[in-house]
Amino acid sequence: MTAQWSDLLEQISSQRGAAGKPIYLVIADYIKDAIEEAAIADNTKLPTNRHLSEMLGIDRSTAARAYAELAKDGYIASHVGRGTFTRLPMKTAPAPSFEHTDELIWAEKFSRASQTVYDMFRLEHSKYGWQKGVISFAGGIPTADSYPNQDFEDMLSSILQQGRGHEMFEYSPGEGQPDLRREVKKYLQSQDINVTDDELLIVSGSQQGLDLVSGILIDPQDVVAMEDPSYLWAICSFKSRQARCVPVSLDENGLRLDVLDQVLKRQRVKFIYTIPNYQNPTGITMSVERRENLMQLANHHQVPILEDNFAGELRYEGEPLPSLRALPGGENLVIHMGTFSKALCPALRLGWLVAPAKAMSRITIAKRASNLSTNSISQVLLAEFLNRGLYDKHLSIVRELYKKRRDTMLGALQKELGYLAGSNKEKNKVSWSKPDGGMFAWIKLPDGCHSRDLLTYAERAGVTYAPGDMCFLTPDNPEYLRLCFIQLDEETIKRGVRRLARAIKSYLEDISTVSEENRSYALGAGGQSFI
Amino acid sequence: MTAQWSDLLEQISSQRGAAGKPIYLVIADYIKDAIEEAAIADNTKLPTNRHLSEMLGIDRSTAARAYAELAKDGYIASHVGRGTFTRLPMKTAPAPSFEHTDELIWAEKFSRASQTVYDMFRLEHSKYGWQKGVISFAGGIPTADSYPNQDFEDMLSSILQQGRGHEMFEYSPGEGQPDLRREVKKYLQSQDINVTDDELLIVSGSQQGLDLVSGILIDPQDVVAMEDPSYLWAICSFKSRQARCVPVSLDENGLRLDVLDQVLKRQRVKFIYTIPNYQNPTGITMSVERRENLMQLANHHQVPILEDNFAGELRYEGEPLPSLRALPGGENLVIHMGTFSKALCPALRLGWLVAPAKAMSRITIAKRASNLSTNSISQVLLAEFLNRGLYDKHLSIVRELYKKRRDTMLGALQKELGYLAGSNKEKNKVSWSKPDGGMFAWIKLPDGCHSRDLLTYAERAGVTYAPGDMCFLTPDNPEYLRLCFIQLDEETIKRGVRRLARAIKSYLEDISTVSEENRSYALGAGGQSFI
Repeated sequence: MTAQWSDLLEQISSQRGAAGKPIYLVIADYIKDAIEEAAIADNTKLPTNRHLSEMLGIDRSTAARAYAELAKDGYIASHVGRGTFTRLPMKTAPAPSFEHTDELIWAEKFSRASQTVYDMFRLEHSKYGWQKGVISFAGGIPTADSYPNQDFEDMLSSILQQGRGHEMFEYSPGEGQPDLRREVKKYLQSQDINVTDDELLIVSGSQQGLDLVSGILIDPQDVVAMEDPSYLWAICSFKSRQARCVPVSLDENGLRLDVLDQVLKRQRVKFIYTIPNYQNPTGITMSVERRENLMQLANHHQVPILEDNFAGELRYEGEPLPSLRALPGGENLVIHMGTFSKALCPALRLGWLVAPAKAMSRITIAKRASNLSTNSISQVLLAEFLNRGLYDKHLSIVRELYKKRRDTMLGALQKELGYLAGSNKEKNKVSWSKPDGGMFAWIKLPDGCHSRDLLTYAERAGVTYAPGDMCFLTPDNPEYLRLCFIQLDEETIKRGVRRLARAIKSYLEDISTVSEENRSYALGAGGQSFI
Repeated sequence: MTAQWSDLLEQISSQRGAAGKPIYLVIADYIKDAIEEAAIADNTKLPTNRHLSEMLGIDRSTAARAYAELAKDGYIASHVGRGTFTRLPMKTAPAPSFEHTDELIWAEKFSRASQTVYDMFRLEHSKYGWQKGVISFAGGIPTADSYPNQDFEDMLSSILQQGRGHEMFEYSPGEGQPDLRREVKKYLQSQDINVTDDELLIVSGSQQGLDLVSGILIDPQDVVAMEDPSYLWAICSFKSRQARCVPVSLDENGLRLDVLDQVLKRQRVKFIYTIPNYQNPTGITMSVERRENLMQLANHHQVPILEDNFAGELRYEGEPLPSLRALPGGENLVIHMGTFSKALCPALRLGWLVAPAKAMSRITIAKRASNLSTNSISQVLLAEFLNRGLYDKHLSIVRELYKKRRDTMLGALQKELGYLAGSNKEKNKVSWSKPDGGMFAWIKLPDGCHSRDLLTYAERAGVTYAPGDMCFLTPDNPEYLRLCFIQLDEETIKRGVRRLARAIKSYLEDISTVSEENRSYALGAGGQSFI
C-alpha cells in the first residue's frame, strides 16, 4: 500500500495549482483504478478522513469529497464504528441469462440448430467480465462517440421540414428502399463494383446477409471452405445449418491457396467464405496477387465465394485493394457483403448484398420469409446521408480516429510487452499482428498458455478481451486473444494494455512456477532428472 | 360499344354544370376504367377527336384534353395515319423477377430450404396482376392513408428538440430498446398478459418472430399441428426447416379440438401453431370456450403452443377475447407473438414475442445469430408513441375505419353476389365469411370451381385477390379466395367487388357451358345417359 499512496502523492503534487482535474477527483479516480485493478483488495479498510488528509497533505473537506465520490459510485461502503471499506461495485450489465428455469418441457424441444447457436453463444459469453470499470477490448461495436449524430439530426429535421416525413413511414419493398438502393449502387460503383438492379439487396445488417446466404445454399453435410480462424458468427451461421466447415489456414497474405486447392480437389465444396480485408479475428489483409489467384482458382473449380467485407472502409494505409467481386469472374461467382454498422453506426442495422441475379432472386425471396422487409426510417435517413456526400466526410473522420487508436494500441503493446516480444525464450514469447485497417489486433501468447486461463488474471486486473479459441475450427489453438481497438479512447487503450501486460506477467510467472513445481516433482529425490 | 358510350353520356350530363370533376376527366376516367375492365378490348380503335366530340356533344378541345390525359397515362397510343388505339398500360410494379440468368453453377447450389421458400413464393406470386388500375384485394398490408404520420413527425421533432436525438442512433441490445420494452410490457399488461424481463423480446416484425421460433424448435421431420388452411408464410417457415405440418380443420369456433386430440394422441407433436383472432385466411375467431379447452388439451399433453396474434387489435365487435397466454398454463406453454405492422405501420418493422424464460433465452440467442438486433430509431419512436398514449387513440381510429371497410365489403358482396348466395343449386352457390375483426373475408365458390381459373377472368375485369389453395396443407381445396378489405377505400372496395362479381358470373357461365358440353359428350348418340 505504501508505494501506492506515494504514487498518488506524486499525481496530486503534479496536479496542484494546475487548471485541470480537482484534487478530490484525482484521489477518487486513483482509488477507483486501484480497486478495479485489484491493487487494493476487495473489502480493504481505508484510512479515516483525518488520516487520509494528513497522509496526502490535503484539506479534510477534500478527503471527504473524494470519499463521497467513491461512495456515490459504489466503490466504498462505510460501517458505523468499523470504518470505511472498499468493495467492487455490483455488476451493471450482466450477460443475458440463459438458465433461469429449466422446465423439462422446453429442454427437450430445442432443435439441433438451436443447440449449435447456444453453444457458440456460451463460448463467446462464458467468461466475459462486466464488472464496473473493467476495460473491454472484447466485442467489436463502434461506440457512440464516433457516430455522426449531428448530421443525422439535421437530416431528420430537414426531411421533416421538406414535408417528406411520410417517406419514412411508408412500407419499403423487400429489396430495399429505392433511394437507398440508388445511393448504394453509386457507392459500390466508386469501388469498381458495378451492379444491376437484379444483383443488389438491402439487408437488415450484415448478420442478416450471412443468415440469408447460409439459408439458400447450405444443406446438412454441405462443405464450406473458410479461413481458420474466422468470424465466430459466420461459423455459427454455417454450422447451425449443419454445414461441415473445412479449415484453410492463413499466412501473412491471407487465405492459403495451396491448402484451399487441396480442399477443392478432394471435396465437393458448396462455397468459400472469406474476409479479405483486416480479417476477423487476425487483422490480416489478403494481398492483391492472392486475390487474383483466388479468383482464378474459384473460376477453375466453378465454386462460389462469399466475400465478407465487414470493415473494408476502415483502411489506414495505402490504396484500397480490389474487391473479389470486381475481379474477373467475380460477377458470376462472388456474393459480396458489406455493412454500414462498422464504419458508420450499428443502430441503423443496414447493410447490403451483391450477388449474381440467379442467386439474388433466391436470397430476396428468403428475405421475404425471414423478416419481410427492412425498416424504412433508417433507409430514408441513410439514403439522404449518402446523397449529401456525408459518408465520405464521415469516413475520413473515423479513419483518422481509428488509425490513431490502432497506433496507440500497437505503441502500448510495444511499450508494455516489448520485452516479451523480444524474448529469446519461446516459453515467454508474446507476439501480435500489425493490422493495416479494421478493428482488431491479434495476440499470440507463448506456447502452453491458454487465453481463457489468462482471462481470470486479466479480469482481476480490470481488463477483458475475446479469447481466440472460439474463432478456430481446429482444436488446440488456445494461445490467442483478440483485442478491438476502435471502441475506446486512447487513454483508456493505454490503461487497458497496461492492465493486460500486468495480467500476462502474473500469469506467466504463475505457470512458470507451476511448471517449476511440476519439474521438481518430476525430478527424483536427489534432484536428478528422470527424463 | 354503343351501350357503353350511352353510359358515359349519362355521366357527362349528370356532371355538367356541377362543381365537380371536369368533363374531360370524367371521359378519360370512364375510358380508363373500361380499358382496365376489358370492356373495351386492347388495341381497339377509338373515335377521332371530331367524332368523339359529336357523339358526346362536347367541345373538340374537351375531347382532345381527354385523349391527352389518356395518352399521358399510357392508355392510348396514336399512330399517324391510322388513328388512336387503346392499350393496357405497361406493368408498373412487376413481381420480383427470379429467372433472369440460369447459370448452372447456381441452379445446382440451392438448398432444400431455399427450394421450399421459392415454391411458396411462386405459389403466392404466379398469377398476381400488377396491371395499372387493377384493384387488388390480394396481400394484407395496410396502406399509408391509415398511418399516424403527423404524430410520428411531431414525435421525431420533439425528440430532436429535447436533445434526445442521440438515443435513436445508439445501438440497442438484442432483446430490444429498454424504453420500448417497458412500454410493450405495459401494453401487454392491459391485455392480462403479464411478463417478466426474461419473457419478452422485441423482434424486427412478426415474420422474424416466426422465423426465430421455427429455428429454435424444428428439426427435420418434427411435427407441427396447425389450422388448415393457415398463414402461407408460417407454413413456409415450418416447411423450410423440413417440419411435417399436420392439418387440423376449423369450424365456426376455430381449431377443431376433436381432430387435434387425435393428432396429439397419435403423433409426437413439437408444437401447435394457431391464429385465434380473425384467422388468416378464414377470418374465424376462436371462441372463449374453445380457447379454454385448447389450453386444457395442451396442458394435458404438455405440448407448447405458438399463438400468432397478428391482428388482435383489429376487433370490430364485442369484447376482446383472452389470449391463450393469459389462460391457465399459458405462462409455461404458450409462445405469444404480436406485431405493430397491421394495426399501426408496417414500415416500423416491429413486433414482440412472449415466451417462457427457458425458451426465450434460446430465442434471444437465435436473434443474435439472425440479425444481431433491431433498428433503434423506430424503437425509440414507437416507445414515445406508446408512452404518450397515442396508440390507443390510433387504434380507435383504425378500428372505425376498417370496420366501415369490412361492412362495405360485406354489403357489396351481398349486393353483387347475394343472388348466388341464396342459390339452391349447389353448382352456383357462393358463400363468404363474416369476420368480426381483422382484415380478411374468405369466399367459397361452388364445388368444381378453381380460384386460379377465376383469376384469369378477374384480372380481365380489373380485380385481383389471393387464391386460397396456397393456404391449405391438404390438396383439393380449389374453391376458396381471400379478400383483404383494410387496404382500399370504400368506393374502390365497391368497384372491386362489382368487377369480381362480373368475373364470377362469366366464369360460372363458361364452366356451366363446358359442363353442358361435357354432359352432352357423356350422353350417348340417342341422348340417353350411360351413367
